[in-house]
Formats: sequence, C-alpha cells, structure tokens
Amino acid sequence: MADGEIKVDSDPVFKGIDPIKYEGPDSNNMLAYRYYNKDQMVLGKRMEDHLRMAVCYWHTFCWDGFDIFGAGTTDRPWHGAANDRAAADAKMAAAFEFFTKLGLPYYCFHDVDVTEDSATPDELSNNLKRSADRLAAYQEATGVKLLWGTANLFSNPRFAAGGLTNPNPEVAACAVRQIRDCLEATNQLGGENYVLWGGREGYDTLLNTSLDRELNNFGRFLSMVVEHKHKIGFKGKILIEPKPHEPMYHQYDFDSATIHGFLQRFGLEKEVHVNIEPNHSTLSGHSFAHEIATAVSLGIMGSIDINCGNYQNGWDTDQFNLDVRDITLALIELLPSGGLDTGGFNFDAKVRRQSSDLDDLFYAHVGGVDALARALLSAADIIEKGEIAKFKAERYAGWEGSDLGKMMLSDGASLESIADKAAAAGLNPSHTSGRQEMLENLVNRSLK
Amino acid sequence: MADGEIKVDSDPVFKGIDPIKYEGPDSNNMLAYRYYNKDQMVLGKRMEDHLRMAVCYWHTFCWDGFDIFGAGTTDRPWHGAANDRAAADAKMAAAFEFFTKLGLPYYCFHDVDVTEDSATPDELSNNLKRSADRLAAYQEATGVKLLWGTANLFSNPRFAAGGLTNPNPEVAACAVRQIRDCLEATNQLGGENYVLWGGREGYDTLLNTSLDRELNNFGRFLSMVVEHKHKIGFKGKILIEPKPHEPMYHQYDFDSATIHGFLQRFGLEKEVHVNIEPNHSTLSGHSFAHEIATAVSLGIMGSIDINCGNYQNGWDTDQFNLDVRDITLALIELLPSGGLDTGGFNFDAKVRRQSSDLDDLFYAHVGGVDALARALLSAADIIEKGEIAKFKAERYAGWEGSDLGKMMLSDGASLESIADKAAAAGLNPSHTSGRQEMLENLVNRSLK
Amino acid sequence: MADGEIKVDSDPVFKGIDPIKYEGPDSNNMLAYRYYNKDQMVLGKRMEDHLRMAVCYWHTFCWDGFDIFGAGTTDRPWHGAANDRAAADAKMAAAFEFFTKLGLPYYCFHDVDVTEDSATPDELSNNLKRSADRLAAYQEATGVKLLWGTANLFSNPRFAAGGLTNPNPEVAACAVRQIRDCLEATNQLGGENYVLWGGREGYDTLLNTSLDRELNNFGRFLSMVVEHKHKIGFKGKILIEPKPHEPMYHQYDFDSATIHGFLQRFGLEKEVHVNIEPNHSTLSGHSFAHEIATAVSLGIMGSIDINCGNYQNGWDTDQFNLDVRDITLALIELLPSGGLDTGGFNFDAKVRRQSSDLDDLFYAHVGGVDALARALLSAADIIEKGEIAKFKAERYAGWEGSDLGKMMLSDGASLESIADKAAAAGLNPSHTSGRQEMLENLVNRSLK
Amino acid sequence: MADGEIKVDSDPVFKGIDPIKYEGPDSNNMLAYRYYNKDQMVLGKRMEDHLRMAVCYWHTFCWDGFDIFGAGTTDRPWHGAANDRAAADAKMAAAFEFFTKLGLPYYCFHDVDVTEDSATPDELSNNLKRSADRLAAYQEATGVKLLWGTANLFSNPRFAAGGLTNPNPEVAACAVRQIRDCLEATNQLGGENYVLWGGREGYDTLLNTSLDRELNNFGRFLSMVVEHKHKIGFKGKILIEPKPHEPMYHQYDFDSATIHGFLQRFGLEKEVHVNIEPNHSTLSGHSFAHEIATAVSLGIMGSIDINCGNYQNGWDTDQFNLDVRDITLALIELLPSGGLDTGGFNFDAKVRRQSSDLDDLFYAHVGGVDALARALLSAADIIEKGEIAKFKAERYAGWEGSDLGKMMLSDGASLESIADKAAAAGLNPSHTSGRQEMLENLVNRSLK
Repeated sequence: MADGEIKVDSDPVFKGIDPIKYEGPDSNNMLAYRYYNKDQMVLGKRMEDHLRMAVCYWHTFCWDGFDIFGAGTTDRPWHGAANDRAAADAKMAAAFEFFTKLGLPYYCFHDVDVTEDSATPDELSNNLKRSADRLAAYQEATGVKLLWGTANLFSNPRFAAGGLTNPNPEVAACAVRQIRDCLEATNQLGGENYVLWGGREGYDTLLNTSLDRELNNFGRFLSMVVEHKHKIGFKGKILIEPKPHEPMYHQYDFDSATIHGFLQRFGLEKEVHVNIEPNHSTLSGHSFAHEIATAVSLGIMGSIDINCGNYQNGWDTDQFNLDVRDITLALIELLPSGGLDTGGFNFDAKVRRQSSDLDDLFYAHVGGVDALARALLSAADIIEKGEIAKFKAERYAGWEGSDLGKMMLSDGASLESIADKAAAAGLNPSHTSGRQEMLENLVNRSLK
Repeated sequence: MADGEIKVDSDPVFKGIDPIKYEGPDSNNMLAYRYYNKDQMVLGKRMEDHLRMAVCYWHTFCWDGFDIFGAGTTDRPWHGAANDRAAADAKMAAAFEFFTKLGLPYYCFHDVDVTEDSATPDELSNNLKRSADRLAAYQEATGVKLLWGTANLFSNPRFAAGGLTNPNPEVAACAVRQIRDCLEATNQLGGENYVLWGGREGYDTLLNTSLDRELNNFGRFLSMVVEHKHKIGFKGKILIEPKPHEPMYHQYDFDSATIHGFLQRFGLEKEVHVNIEPNHSTLSGHSFAHEIATAVSLGIMGSIDINCGNYQNGWDTDQFNLDVRDITLALIELLPSGGLDTGGFNFDAKVRRQSSDLDDLFYAHVGGVDALARALLSAADIIEKGEIAKFKAERYAGWEGSDLGKMMLSDGASLESIADKAAAAGLNPSHTSGRQEMLENLVNRSLK
Repeated sequence: MADGEIKVDSDPVFKGIDPIKYEGPDSNNMLAYRYYNKDQMVLGKRMEDHLRMAVCYWHTFCWDGFDIFGAGTTDRPWHGAANDRAAADAKMAAAFEFFTKLGLPYYCFHDVDVTEDSATPDELSNNLKRSADRLAAYQEATGVKLLWGTANLFSNPRFAAGGLTNPNPEVAACAVRQIRDCLEATNQLGGENYVLWGGREGYDTLLNTSLDRELNNFGRFLSMVVEHKHKIGFKGKILIEPKPHEPMYHQYDFDSATIHGFLQRFGLEKEVHVNIEPNHSTLSGHSFAHEIATAVSLGIMGSIDINCGNYQNGWDTDQFNLDVRDITLALIELLPSGGLDTGGFNFDAKVRRQSSDLDDLFYAHVGGVDALARALLSAADIIEKGEIAKFKAERYAGWEGSDLGKMMLSDGASLESIADKAAAAGLNPSHTSGRQEMLENLVNRSLK
Repeated sequence: MADGEIKVDSDPVFKGIDPIKYEGPDSNNMLAYRYYNKDQMVLGKRMEDHLRMAVCYWHTFCWDGFDIFGAGTTDRPWHGAANDRAAADAKMAAAFEFFTKLGLPYYCFHDVDVTEDSATPDELSNNLKRSADRLAAYQEATGVKLLWGTANLFSNPRFAAGGLTNPNPEVAACAVRQIRDCLEATNQLGGENYVLWGGREGYDTLLNTSLDRELNNFGRFLSMVVEHKHKIGFKGKILIEPKPHEPMYHQYDFDSATIHGFLQRFGLEKEVHVNIEPNHSTLSGHSFAHEIATAVSLGIMGSIDINCGNYQNGWDTDQFNLDVRDITLALIELLPSGGLDTGGFNFDAKVRRQSSDLDDLFYAHVGGVDALARALLSAADIIEKGEIAKFKAERYAGWEGSDLGKMMLSDGASLESIADKAAAAGLNPSHTSGRQEMLENLVNRSLK
C-alpha cells in the first residue's frame, strides 16, 4: 500500500467479530445490543440522534494497559508494526474497523493519538497534516464522523508545568501552535466541536505559581482560540473539560461552575461550552447530574465524555459506565433543555488493565452503549409521565401565582419593601414536604 | 438589675481565670499567650492589626455539646437561668467577660445567638432590637467591637428548603426581613462586615429543585442586600461564606471560584466578598491556602473563619486550628496583597464535645490565638527573606523579559501570529525544574 | 386505657393509609409494592424468607427531623402526648400500626427508643421492663417479630467518651448494666439477634486515649456478653456493627475485617457476627458488596442495616437505598453462602429532613422494600443463569486441575520446593483477561 | 572496568555536591542539615539510631518522572548508558554515591530496581545474583547497609491479577520463586528486614474474584516465607505493607488492623510485622499516628516508609513529608514502645515530576531528613515533659485504683455481677472533660 493510501475492510484486525446488531432485551448474545436500536424513535427523535455516540481514540487504540505500577498488558496488533509511521497507520485502520463494527456515528482524537511519535513541534505539525488527510479518507470511506479533536498539551515533558498556562512563553507558544494546527485539522475533518482539556493547566504547589499570571494567560489565549475559530469558519463549539485534580494537584478547570466564572471574566461565556465527564464530576464532589444541570442552567452545556469512576478510589479510573439509574438522573436534566446540540456521548473510558484481549474492547463498548440507550428509554418514560416536572412546577408556583411572589419579583422591590411587607402581613410560614423519597420512587419506577 | 441594664465584671462566670497575658515562647503557663503579643510589630504593623481576631458567639456560648448522636455535655451557667430572656442576658454577660479576658478585639454573632427563642418573626425582630441595644452597651463598656453579624436562615424549620432560595416566596420574604433587621443591627453596632452563610441555600435532590429559579432569586435578593447596605450607609463589606455541602447535599456557595462566577452573573463581583474557612476549604477539595489565593486573585478576599477539620472525617468538625504550617502557607498568599482590610480571623471553632468544662473554652482559644500568631511570625520571616517571591518572579520573567513573551502579550497577537512565530523560530523548548521541594524547605526553615 | 394495656387498630395515626399490597410492576399506585410479593418463590424460598425485612424504631418513630444546623421539622402526632410516658406509649401504638400496614415481619429497637426519658439508670431499667411487656403484647397481637434489640450507649452524655471502652469504670459498669437489661428484654421478646453498635467506642484524639486499655476492656466485656447470652439461653446471634467514623474521629469497629481481627484476639470469632450497613461500608472505603463478601468469607456474616449514603457527602446520611444494581451486587455475594440466617434487612434509614409528612414514611419504605425485592429477583436471575460463577470457577481451575496447583497446595510444599519447581519448569506465564466488562454486562442483563 | 567490579568515588554523578553536613538551625545553606545531627543524644540514644533512615532505590533512581498522563521529565545520567546492564551498573554507582553524600545509614530495593530488564524469570534470577554481589561490594566499600529488600510482584504484566494471590498457579509459582530469590539476596546482604508490598494482591472486581481462594493462598504462601526465613537463618523481620487501594480497586493489606486479623487466621501474628506509610495511612481513612498506635498496640510494629500525600488528592502521591507536627504525633505513639527495632524510616518518596534536576533529589532528602529530626526533638520534649502521659494515666486510674474497677477486671466478673453491682450502688456517673484542646496545645508547645 502506498503511503497515504488507506485500507478499509481488507485484512481486518478484529477477526471473527461481525458488526454489532440490535437484538432486543431478551437476547443472550454478548455481542449484540439489547437496548440500542438506533432508528427507534424516543421523544420524537431517533436514538442515534439523541445520543450521538463516539469512540475515543486514546484509551481504546493508544493505551497499552500500563499504569503507574506496571507495564502494558495488551498486545494490540497495530502496535507491532515495523516503524512508528506504519504503526500509526495500522492503528488508524483498526480504529475505523472498530468504529464501523460498533455502528456508532462518531469518534474523537488528540493530535498525538493519530500521528506517529514526533521529535519536534515541526514534525508533529507535519505528521498531523498527513494523518488528517488519511482520517478524511477514512471518514469518506466509512461514513464515520468526527465529534471533536483536541491537542495533547500534557504528555510531552515540555508541558510539565502546563501548556497555555506555562510560566515559559516558549512553551505556551508551542501550545498555541499545536492548538492552531489541531483546530484547523478538526475543521478540515468537519469536526463538530473542538475540546481543550487542561490536564496540566493548574499547579502542583502555590509556592512556585502565580495564579494571576496563569489565569490571565489562559483567558487571553482562549480568547484567541475563539477568534481563530471564527476566522477559519469553524462551525463547531469550543469546549473546555472540567476536572478538579490529576495530574496536577489543582486544575483550573475544576468544575462547570468554576469554568463559567472564568469564562465570564474574559467575556467568553457565550462562546465556550463544557465537555462534562461523570468521573471528573464525582472527583470534584458533584454528581454527574449536578454537573449537567449546572451547565444547562448556565448556558454552557456542550458535550459529554461518558464513563464512571468507582466511588472508593480517588483518581480518574475512566470505567465504562453501566449505572443506568445514574445516567438517567443526568438525562432528565439534559433532555428538557433540548438535549445535545453539536455535542455527543464520547466513550472516554478504558477497559481495565486486566481486560487484555481485543474482544474486551467490544464487550466494554457494547455494554456502555446499551447502558446509555437503556437510560435514554428510562428518562424518556419519566419525562413522558411528567409527574416529577409537575411536582416541581407546583413547588415554585407561588412566585408567579401569588401577590407576594409577584411583588418580590417586580421591578421596584427592595429589601425594605419586602421586609416591610413580611412584617405587615405577619408572615410566619412553615415548611412543606420536599417529597424526595416519592420522587426517587418515580425514577425507579421508570427504570428499564 | 433592671431589664435592659447590662452588667460588666460583677459576678463573673469564669471565676479564677485572669485576663490572658503574653508571657513569651518559654512560658509553661497554659493560660498565657506564648506568641500573641498584640503590640509587637510584624511587617510594619501591630500583630493585633494584622490578625483582627474575633470570638464567635454560637459555638462558644450557644452550643451545649449536642451532636446528632447525643445530648449536650456542657453545663454552662448561663443556660440555667430562670427564663429564656434571663438566659440570653446571662449568656451575653458571660460572652463579654470571655472576650475581655482573652483580650481579643472582636466578636461575631447570628441574630438568634444573641436573642432568646422567638416564636414568630415579629418576636425575633423585637428581640433583636432589644439585644442590639444591650450589645451596644457592652461594646461601649468593654471596647470590644463587632467584626460581623449575620442572620440565621437555617435553624428554624421554615428554612428546611432554604432561605433566600426557598421555593415558597413567603419563606423567602421572612429571610429578607431577617437579613434587613440583622444588617441594620450590625450597622447600629458598627460592625465591620455583614455575612451571609448559605447553610440551606442549595438542594438535597435535583428531583424537586429548579436551579435556575433558586439561583436567580438568590442573585436578585443579594443585589437588594447590597443596595440596602448603601442606602443605610453601612460601611462594612458584604460577605458570602463558601461551603460545598452540609447540611444540604449541595450548597450553592460551593467555593470561592463558584461564588465569583455567581457574583459576576449579577454584577456583584465588586460589592460582595468571601468569608473563607479552612474546614470548608478542605471539604471542597481545596487547601486553605488555595481558597485564600483564589479569593485574592479574583479580588473578593474578605474575612476568615479560622478553624480546621481533620482530614479523615467528611463533615465540618470546626476544630481549633493548631496547624502552624498550614496557616503560614495561607498567610503568605494573603499578606502580600495587603492582608485583611475590614476582615479578621474569627474563631468559628468549637471545643470537642468531650471538652465539657468552662476552662476548655480558654484552652481552646489560647491555643488557636497562639497558632495564628506563630504563623504570622513564620509568614513574615518568609516574606522578609524573599527567596520564594524571587524564585517565582524569575520563573515568569520571560513574559516581560523576552521578545516572544512581549509579542504574545501585545495587542495584535493572535493564535495565528503566535503559532507562526513558534514555527518560524523552530521553538522546541524543554521544561525546567519547578523546585517544589526546595521551596517547601524554605517554608519549613521559617516556621517558628 | 389502663396503663400497661395496649391498643391495636383503635384510633389509627396513619389515617387513610391502607395496608400496602403487591400490585405488580405495572402499577402506578405509589402506595403499592411493584416487586415485593412476599409469597413469591425465588431460588426455592419465599421472598419474605429471603429478605426478612424490619422497620427500625429510631429513625422512623423517634427522630423529629433535627440536624446539627436546625430544629425538628416533623410534627408526629405521637410526640405531642401529655407526658413522656404517654408519648412513648403513643409512639409504640403508631409503630405497630406502621409495621402492620407495611406488612413487614420484623422491627428493631434501642432501649431508649421504646421507653420514655429516664433520669437515671435505675429508671431506664424499670422503664425498659414495662416497655418490654407492652412490646410483647403488641407482638402477640400483630404477629410482628423482633429482629434485634440494642442498648443505646451513645446518646446520654455519660457516654461521651464511650460505653464499654470508657476510661471511667463507673460508666462502663452502667454500659454493662444497660446491655444486660436489653439483652434480657430482647430474649424475652424472642429477638433473633442482639446488636452492639459502638457509636462512641473509639476516640477523638490519641492524646487522651489508651488503645490497649480500651480495646482490652471492649474484648473482655464482649466476652461477658457472649457468656451471658448462653447463660440465659438466648438463641439469637450477637452482632457488632462496623462503622469507621462518626460520631468519633475513629471508631474501633472500623469495618468487617477489623472486627474479625478483634474477635480473634478474644477468641470470639465463632460467637459474634457483623451487622453490615451500606452507608457505613462506603464511609470506610469499601463497596457494600465488599463488606458482605468479606463477612461471608470470614464466617461472620450476620445481618444488614439496609440504607445508603450519597457518595459526595462524607457523613452517614442513612438514606433509603434505591440502587438496585448496587444491592444486586451485594446479594450475589450473600445468597450463594445460604443467605441470611437469623439476620434480616433492617431499614436503618431515615426520610430526608424536608420529607416532613407522615406519608413520606410510607413512600420511603415502599420504595426501599421494592428496591430490595427487585434486587433479589435480579440476583436470582444471575445465579440461575450461572455464567459468572462458571467464569470464576474456570479462572481458578488450575489449582485443583493441574499438577503444579496440586503440588503447591500439598502438605509438603515449601517456598523452596515451589521456587525450584518454577525454575526447573522454566515457568514464564503470561496474564489472561479478567473479563471485567463482560461480567459487568452480565449483571446489567439480569437487572429487572 | 571489568564486569563485576564496582566503582566508588571515581567519576561522580552528583558533581559539585559535597557530603551533607549538620550546620544547625540557623544555617541558610539549603544543602545542609539544620536539625539532623546524627550523634546528638535524644532520649538516651543517638539520633541516627533512633531514626535509622534509608534511601529508596525505586523513586530516586529508577523512576524517570513519567505519570499516567505523560512521559518522563528527568534526564538521569545513569539512564543513558549503552545497554541495560551498563545502565543498571551506572545507576548502582550513582545510588551509592547519593547514599554516601547524604550520610544516611541504609537503603532499600526491589529486585527489579537493581537489575537490568529481564526477559524471563530465569534471567531475573541470574541478574539478581550478579547485582547482589555488586551491592555487597558497595556496602563493604561505603559502609551503607540494607534496611530491606523486596520482590517486585506488580510491574511485570504477568502479575496483572496478583502475585501470591493470582488465580493462575503458574504465576503464583513465579511469585514464590522471586520472593525466595530476593529473600536470599536480602539475607546475603545482611538486610535487616524483608518486605512484601501487595500491590496487586487484591481485586478490581468481585465478579471475577474468589476472596476465599486468594486469601487462603496468600496466607499459605506467607507461612512458607516465614518458614524459609527461619530455614536460611535470616535474622530480619518479615514485613507486610498496608495500603487500601491502588493499583487495585481493593487491596487485601488494607490497613494495620486488617493485616493483624489476616495474620491471626494463619497463626503468623508473632512472625510478621507491618511497614507503615503515612500516605497509605491517610488513603485508608486513618492518620499516620493511628496506624503507628494500632501496630504498636497489636504488637506488629515493624518499619516506616516515610512520605506523605496531600489531603486533596485521592491517590498515592508519595511526597517528601515536611509536616513536623504530624510526624511528632506519630513519634509519641512509637517511641514509648521502644521505638524501631530492626525497622527504620525509609524515604519512600519521590520528587515531583516537575522537579527534574539532580539537585532536587538532594533538596528533597535534606528536607525530609530534617523534618524527621525536628519531629524527633519535638517528640522527645513532649515525652520528657510527661504531662500528656500523666493526664492519660490519671484518666484511666479508676481501673486499678477503685474497688469497682478492680472487681470488673477480676477473674470472676460477669455481665451479671457487674450489672448487679452497678444497680446496687445506684451508679449514675457523669462524664468528665477529655481536655483535647489543652493536650493539643501541649504538643504545639513542644514543636521545634
């Protein structure tokens, strides 16, 4: 095969695995979908269009199973090629075979995921150009689309103290360059979003850190990203991904509320949205549903990296999320706002280090896809039944439905006028039941 | 004694305890200060003026030692009076005796701390008027000043679902009234700040909660508080106190960054500051120093509720903070910004439930005061030596000190111009040491 | 009504609430069971006999909704009686009405739950005798049985530093007396277990604590409890309840493994079992399933206090557990060992402080009962399908199925003989997939 | 240099760094000890003999600064050698130069730390023999001694599912072989202890795990380790290192109490001790002092891996511990029991990934050594003053000092006799103050 030419379907890596099909809830086929039926209509939309699922390149095709205590456990055929470039090409072929067999519409990547190792920024820039052309050809050949691209500003040692927030302007300039290149590649590939994950944008110790400097630089360069997006006509959303800690002691993109505050400081709150991850949510002391509800409420909801941690371990375990109830609770916050726009559900999840076979990649994704679909069906049932929404509406009805409420919301109201009114009326109200258990029962009742 | 008349010095409660004096580091007197020497000059200011310490009314005079698993353990003389009003009066006498014996310049209170139990909002309003007059008399008699007042919007069952964020406008109106009254009482007493702690401003479940509604109401009423402050000529700062959880599952005032984002939404970021607490900081996944540095950087640093938790328990234990190193790390973030303005260090800390004697109140405060003073001396030494500040300045020197840095910060710079410059220059920088361990050693070297 | 006479059915407290019935999964009746069908056979046993559910007295009948930040929110009719004794009697009538309407077979109590306030140990002793007689009469009249009784050694201020582990022998003697009385009352009532929850058996600071002394006393007195059980012919199990923290900084009964180690030190590992609670499990860094699996493996599995916390709050929130998947994962560890023997599932859960109506007590229990039943059906399906058990058996098959495995387990094997054998055979094995994702998918497939 | 010959002092790696000397608290030399004065007598023993400090091989000489998100940041001269063996030899030379320049008496290693990469167990076995001879020569030449050796049973992919607890007997046999070889090498080198860290002895999911099987195998093989120790005449202690999580979801050696329970099951509680690490302690929900106090109380105190985490991150960060107060609190639990016997303080700590220079290794260790020495001086002052011990003794005095206490501890005492005595005496005791704050002040007073 000539360099630059892509191969599709010839010489499959996942031999013996047929495209995954929907077989319904009673199927015992571990390589079939039991809930994900992409054309099924749910709340007036196809399942596929609700969920817009994507496979991530890094965990599934780049990671070899290493952890901080031990070497890689997986023996991926594409890692064994004769040289770096050949390995990168083999990886890409395997990735598109995988996307296609799963039947999911999207994928996501970092620049360094889709290129061979690059010794210098120049090499990376060139390698990315070559890989983008190949990705374009694969997209064309398979119909798989790009949910988002992102620049890896954390793996190269130069970024040890951050990318855009690095104390050294030379490093920050390299970060800017990498983002420019990757944003343009994403644009070329019709990517529907562009993500910035601030893995090293944060600090390990305040003793060597200027918060002011770093956050101002971050805001400044982020503004430039937005400006460049418009300049090149990129139609997608710019997304920031909240995470509170790890690898840094503290990361600036702590959670959705923190990011919204940051965006406001730089006038970017209409331009930049968030890419929420359940595992990052729980690490920051929030439920997944909370982060979704917050982003929706603040108008910065963008996309979702679907995964989960386990609650006993304090680092990002990036497991496949099979917790249908937890996802349902998030979806009932998301769907009423119109759901995902350019965003999607990206499987930013990795098989366990012990799950070392190629088959495990399929088991993991099939389970993850089905959990999402099952949660969608559950959330739709809750929304269609409408009891929870009705309870909530009644709980706040006094604001528009009473003279006092209307007065308190009226233009002239002041601390004094309200306080005087409360005193004059001798207000001495009591509490009423919040009915949490009944509402939780309603959720469980709708769980499929 | 006629009602309304205050008593000072007659019939002391803390018998046998003399005013606490400074005796120097070698003293073995457990009821003497070893480091707190209020007139000692540190970094050009008197210790007392740096630290502006306050005793809190609630933990020290109201709490009887109960917890969720058991009844009160302390047998305070002032709780035993013939009726509620007499008990409130006896408590106030004891409180001012205590403030005076400690020799600290400030105290803090909730409206319900300084009044007898009130069956209705009307009663509370009246009782607060009476108590404010008595507090004024005590302040006059003793020279003790008010650091801040605050309205308790969480203990009365009516506030089970929040005060300003309550779904019921009648409850919110009562909250507004209570704030109005308490802000005016604080003003009358020359209070230097007014605090809002959103103990129940948050939610237990999203299933019954409208984030939009609650946060908009919160912002609206907070704007009214600010407006009223100006109207009545209150000179102090309005402070919000960050806390992530407890009593609610989630609290809106999660941390300083979240609060800053919230304030910006309502145009209040110049008007409202934060009251930071170490125990709340650690519960939100931050160090105490982080919260101080963040508030300073965002321009919302207000005051400090000094205490600590223990790191193994996940609730607010409000212990007296004896961790000199941890406080020092916070002070070196605070002092270079000018230190506390109207704020102070309020001992929002309670003796352990087993520390049931009156003497324990003194031991606890003496230890807490000395830890603060010792940290101040340590932080001053670090600042005077200047090595850490110098290291930090050099680490970021490239921004103003190199052509690249200047270009990146210049007006016309864009993603493209920076990326092109990085490419043209063939930038391929490496990382340099962040020297964390050396810097930490410098801190330890200065610890007194 | 003469003192000592009980009333059943006359003058119900829960007016308008009929006995809860099974109506099947499609029912929309919020006061019906959708999964709990007590006579339905599951894995060869009636549902009721599998689950042996109990209502707890304290959260549901004693707690008034107070928390550390505010006063009670519930207005229970039985709290309003003319005097303490009348209130205790009214509470008991309400409790048995509630048990009966739920149709659950068991209840649980502390001595102080079922008695009026007692000013002295003598009074408590006498009051308990009276209440035990009344409970016996209620049990007789309703058929409701006692799962377990327990002595409250944490609410009275005398127990601030512990009960059996108190530094003061007088306090420990009072604790012993209370246990003796309550164990005998439990025996009189046919209780199937007796529980010790070490709420204050632990320490707040090591600075005032002798671990040796306290743990030796604890072991000594626990041995006496066992001895007394046999002496009086109590047929039930003695249970200790693991909890890592709260109210104390550290509690001795940290988790099941810690308790097993403690029991072994005193030769009690055959005599004492554990009462496991999901919320305590997660607070100790374990999953609920882990604690069950550990207790089963160590032979100390006793009973379960079913509830849950939420993962973002670090204290014991004691919520009703609706997480069917989580309970299922625990049940597949429990059921293959034979399930509960004398133990049961006790709803040690409380409605949220905002859930202030009497109805909420029913909603909460109905939801909790159904979640358990649904988990039972799910676990039974997993067990009947058998794939997980089969996978596990094959994973370890090499131990009995290979010469090497047999040799390593044989009597004469030594470090040397095994090492030599590995060297001689040139063993250089690789890992195999642990198939975690596939196994998790199997669980989700069986979830009802 | 001929293979097998060692080099000492020729061609130093740490050029320009002289041996670290004691210069006293007023020194401003960042490469001098300010508190560690090895011959200074403290509580009747030389500082060096109290602390028995060791440098660890892995973090300081093997780790290249990689983390799960990025590649290595350090450029160690010894990593750049022509081949694996030459690199291993260069590393060893650098290590002994470092040990010597620090002037610490001990070091610790894993088998794979001191050998080149080994493709097979046979190669590892042979490489270890060669390296052990070289280590012996270095020890002889420098006087540095071996605190402990350990076999790495977690980095090689074969150990993905554990070493001694692996489901596959072939893997377990390889683990046994590696332990046998490393224990013998440790014995050859005069090692004073042998450690087993169960990094992968645990599970990721219960769904594929037999707790019974794995723990029984673990106990069985550990018994063989003890037996072999005696057979070969190894005089040191066998140590297990508690850690609750990471890399596995759950690790069997959760904490000291769990390990003690496990040891008892296999009759090993007199033979095996624990190697406690502060960072592991806090990850398991305990303070460092708690783990020391527990191990001392249970008679299994062995050695200490001194480091710390930061309380906001939920993984093992292995930082150098500069928290003098925290170490002091641990030392006052350790020293009264006689202190370390064969154990020591091993710096199982790594410089931050950003601390990429060779100098940082010195800064880190100098700071860590001094923090330990300062804590030793502080703890000695507390012990010599004796107030805390006296308070504690008085708190429990009633057990030997009163008739009731004596009766309760006497042979014939029973639940009944004690309860009857409490009733007859009408015991109605109250609590007394636990004086936590006063005791904490006493600690702070002694902090140097």
